[in-house]
Amino acid sequence: MPRIVEVRKDILKKNDLLAAELRAQFLAARVSVVNLVSSPGTGKTALLEATLRALRERHTVAALVGDLATDRDAQRLGRSGARVTQITTGTVCHLDAEMVRSAINGWQLAELDFLFIENVGNLVCPSSYDLGESLRAVLLSVTEGEDKPLKYPTIFNSADVAIVTKTDLAGVVGFDRDEARRNIHEVRPGLPIVETSARTGDGLTEWLAYLEVLRSTCLRLGDAAIT
Amino acid sequence: MPRIVEVRKDILKKNDLLAAELRAQFLAARVSVVNLVSSPGTGKTALLEATLRALRERHTVAALVGDLATDRDAQRLGRSGARVTQITTGTVCHLDAEMVRSAINGWQLAELDFLFIENVGNLVCPSSYDLGESLRAVLLSVTEGEDKPLKYPTIFNSADVAIVTKTDLAGVVGFDRDEARRNIHEVRPGLPIVETSARTGDGLTEWLAYLEVLRSTCLRLGDAAIT
Repeated sequence: MPRIVEVRKDILKKNDLLAAELRAQFLAARVSVVNLVSSPGTGKTALLEATLRALRERHTVAALVGDLATDRDAQRLGRSGARVTQITTGTVCHLDAEMVRSAINGWQLAELDFLFIENVGNLVCPSSYDLGESLRAVLLSVTEGEDKPLKYPTIFNSADVAIVTKTDLAGVVGFDRDEARRNIHEVRPGLPIVETSARTGDGLTEWLAYLEVLRSTCLRLGDAAIT
Repeated sequence: MPRIVEVRKDILKKNDLLAAELRAQFLAARVSVVNLVSSPGTGKTALLEATLRALRERHTVAALVGDLATDRDAQRLGRSGARVTQITTGTVCHLDAEMVRSAINGWQLAELDFLFIENVGNLVCPSSYDLGESLRAVLLSVTEGEDKPLKYPTIFNSADVAIVTKTDLAGVVGFDRDEARRNIHEVRPGLPIVETSARTGDGLTEWLAYLEVLRSTCLRLGDAAIT
């Protein structure tokens, strides 16, 4: 058993080092990088689709999409006009920094304002793999139940923003908004929560405002990184 | 005339260099630095007072306060329990990077989560002086009139967030919310706008969420800066 633990630690350390390199590269190029994590079917692709469409009015955006199999999400997101690359992980239950590095090989990062990374649908493993992102957003749909933050604390704890999705269904499924917020903040006090519906567009303005704050910060701090 | 212009350029260049040094220092210490700019009487101190009180529940916060004369604001803000230092500028109509460097001399920056800098009340000069901040917020009170962004475009253009203040007075003064938002976005498309009242607490949660996004970003990017 100790050997298995050590091997896992080694992999994580290697991933962390590579992620730090990616992050420095992204910062020098002034790209804001957002890692979207959630269970399968929470609505990462729908939110990303709406986000890419809205941001493209003012920004250059691209996305990497992770799935075990198929390039369905990449095809769907590609219709927004943004550059989208599918990462097919086979049996691997999360993206890692090496997959990201390989996917952006040859890209002119400096031409990008935002890079979104839609992780494999999984509430456990992605929390341990830094992808070099500047912001990690965890999604929770109203149809999943308010207790998910308590059951999967690590991923909520490692996130910088929580996005409640499918709020248009809140009434139908009897979603208890206050309990969900309480549970999120029990795990991670002060975590910003945005409530969205990709179907109605609710909450999208707030989410876009967070992304603009992220981008401004990355632009200002880009100078600090190369000084 | 050309000589005067050149001297001004030199001062700005010197300030920019020093600000970049400060920014690198702040990032390495993982301090999020917010520069608050606005006309006199817009409510910078009231907003800052509410912000310091709320953030102190979870974070270590400090503030620098710029005024031509008196330490009234520092005394008022000090009651929040945060470390507050007054910078008295005499006849100078803005803070500059050297004043900030001098004010934080000897501070253990790594112990801080947030440093707020309340600039001298002035809608013109502070826009040209980078203080090494990671976020610049421009405030506009409902009592000032919706046309200020059009009349003072530079400061709105150089900001990362616009904060409308004193919204509790919007009805009394006949504030046209849509026109104000239109004018802000005419000068700076996509600029996030938070509408607040320090008196009622409206909008404070949203403002605090932006600050948490800022802090998460600074924490993540701190690694990139030293790589």
